[in-house]
Amino acid sequence: MMEERTEIADLGEFGLIEHLTKNFEIHNVSTVLGVGDDAAVIDHFGKQTVISTDLLLEGIHFDLMYTPLKHLGYKAVMVNLSDIYAMNATPTQITVSIGISNRISIEALNEFYEGIYIACEKHGVDLVGGDTTTSQKGFIISVTAIGEVTPDKFVKRSTAQKGDLICVSGDLGGAFLGLTLMEREKGIYLENPKVQPDLENESYIVGRLLKPEARKEVIDFFEQNDIVPTAMMDVSDGVSSEVMHLCKQSNLGCRIYEDKLPISDESRQAAYKFGLDPTVCALNGGEDYELIFTLKQEDHDKITLNEEISVIGYMTELEEGSKIITKGGNTFNITAQGWNAFKQ
Amino acid sequence: MMEERTEIADLGEFGLIEHLTKNFEIHNVSTVLGVGDDAAVIDHFGKQTVISTDLLLEGIHFDLMYTPLKHLGYKAVMVNLSDIYAMNATPTQITVSIGISNRISIEALNEFYEGIYIACEKHGVDLVGGDTTTSQKGFIISVTAIGEVTPDKFVKRSTAQKGDLICVSGDLGGAFLGLTLMEREKGIYLENPKVQPDLENESYIVGRLLKPEARKEVIDFFEQNDIVPTAMMDVSDGVSSEVMHLCKQSNLGCRIYEDKLPISDESRQAAYKFGLDPTVCALNGGEDYELIFTLKQEDHDKITLNEEISVIGYMTELEEGSKIITKGGNTFNITAQGWNAFKQ
Repeated sequence: MMEERTEIADLGEFGLIEHLTKNFEIHNVSTVLGVGDDAAVIDHFGKQTVISTDLLLEGIHFDLMYTPLKHLGYKAVMVNLSDIYAMNATPTQITVSIGISNRISIEALNEFYEGIYIACEKHGVDLVGGDTTTSQKGFIISVTAIGEVTPDKFVKRSTAQKGDLICVSGDLGGAFLGLTLMEREKGIYLENPKVQPDLENESYIVGRLLKPEARKEVIDFFEQNDIVPTAMMDVSDGVSSEVMHLCKQSNLGCRIYEDKLPISDESRQAAYKFGLDPTVCALNGGEDYELIFTLKQEDHDKITLNEEISVIGYMTELEEGSKIITKGGNTFNITAQGWNAFKQ
Repeated sequence: MMEERTEIADLGEFGLIEHLTKNFEIHNVSTVLGVGDDAAVIDHFGKQTVISTDLLLEGIHFDLMYTPLKHLGYKAVMVNLSDIYAMNATPTQITVSIGISNRISIEALNEFYEGIYIACEKHGVDLVGGDTTTSQKGFIISVTAIGEVTPDKFVKRSTAQKGDLICVSGDLGGAFLGLTLMEREKGIYLENPKVQPDLENESYIVGRLLKPEARKEVIDFFEQNDIVPTAMMDVSDGVSSEVMHLCKQSNLGCRIYEDKLPISDESRQAAYKFGLDPTVCALNGGEDYELIFTLKQEDHDKITLNEEISVIGYMTELEEGSKIITKGGNTFNITAQGWNAFKQ
């Protein structure tokens, strides 16, 4: 049976937008006008609007050789929702713009939008606009997420206080180990296309890479338990890089404890298999899309029953520097080895 | 003297964002939090928020061979502000994401952001966020514009009524003729780099292409004169394409009069020089970024004194079709030959 393939030129830009967005229903009363006009209209009376945007490029941020398009659509939404949650806000709308080469068929784009649709459904978010165009090379994705927050309840990066606990949700390093695995399997496949990829027992780290989850439940937990973090951001570049941002923007130092870093068994085993140090993967691996936040010490009891939250250290005076204390008791300066898109 | 060139890798992503955005001041009280966190925070209490986004790609939407980066930054903002004005709304914030190859220096990016800055200043808009990344090929620009409008005063494309006047601001076809000129000069230059471009007397059409102006003054005029168009959109793909959108979305037909199409003397002369029909350029040329809108007939007297507004026709019943009446009195169906990014 031949695979179906419809060329995008057959639909034209407006036909394409209509085709791709017709199944999206509106979830938010704040969405006054969605896709199909010059702009969308949003009504956030009595709330503040939060906005964040990300540009994802083929060959830089994703590799279509091992990234199914449905996962890519899902992830493109999640990484933006993660930024909205990182403000202690609730995402309500997104816009999605794409640049596509003629290598991509309508069927492939359907897959991509199916992933966007699932992500939107899961988080109650409305797709309200976007732009589609051809690209000369590579698949280009630009997502903007809009959210709402009760006035002045948003949480910045710059407002941590000395003595605050540093916490992270979930576990760290998994996405980086998933990437390491996929890159290794890709290399093997390119050398010998007959070798089938060996992903058995690796579904956890592969899932962390290909299908990250924005941590809505952490924000919900804060609200239910009357917790307002003193500072927060999402873990996209690696926790060492994010800790440095919190310190720099709050004008403080920190102490992080190696033995407190949450690392899953699957990640630990994968790290050993690849000859990597699990701690280094947890500190410097990016794309986990967990939340890192600081809490007043008196809020400690409120989080102890939440197994998804780990206290990994505390904020200090600026003069005490940003340091990690190893399991062996040694102290090192933290260096932000976060992924720098300009130095590959 | 050597031209200065600073590599982007020397700054890193966060240094780059700081460098590029440090001169942008906040103009709107609604901008609660701008660049530098996971997301921006906007406070539009009592107003509705309008949002629009565009993706601009090198080689598809612009050619760096004849597009100065300062103009490109300016235009990237203007095309988005144009969408906000087309909703009868006032732009208040933008986000700008860029993908850049290592071909582009900091000095070149400074030029680009200088253009963004001038556009923002001119329209009182705040730059509140964005994303920067490397691209493997070409300069990629994604701009999202946010605006505000008095509740339910926004104007859609779908609400024109039978008998309404069809109006456009400014004049048409100039940007297309500017593009035709630049492409012709580029061809001559590539064949013989010693030939200097002949742009004398062509500054009007070149300006229409490289430095379009979003039509804030038309929206201001509506407000001052208590005019609310029944439908509106901006002219980005060509007036014939936009007229078809208004008809289709409003479920109506139309009559357009060739002799009413506003065409500048400069555009008319350039068209003759290139052996083109000025009417075809006005109907099918894109990127003029004028506003096309429909008005109740009783509002006609309110616009007669505004020389910037031309009445080009009127809306009819759907069954009467979408037709243009030529100077010679012939009637033809309007075909939307607007620029289709998927069929080049």
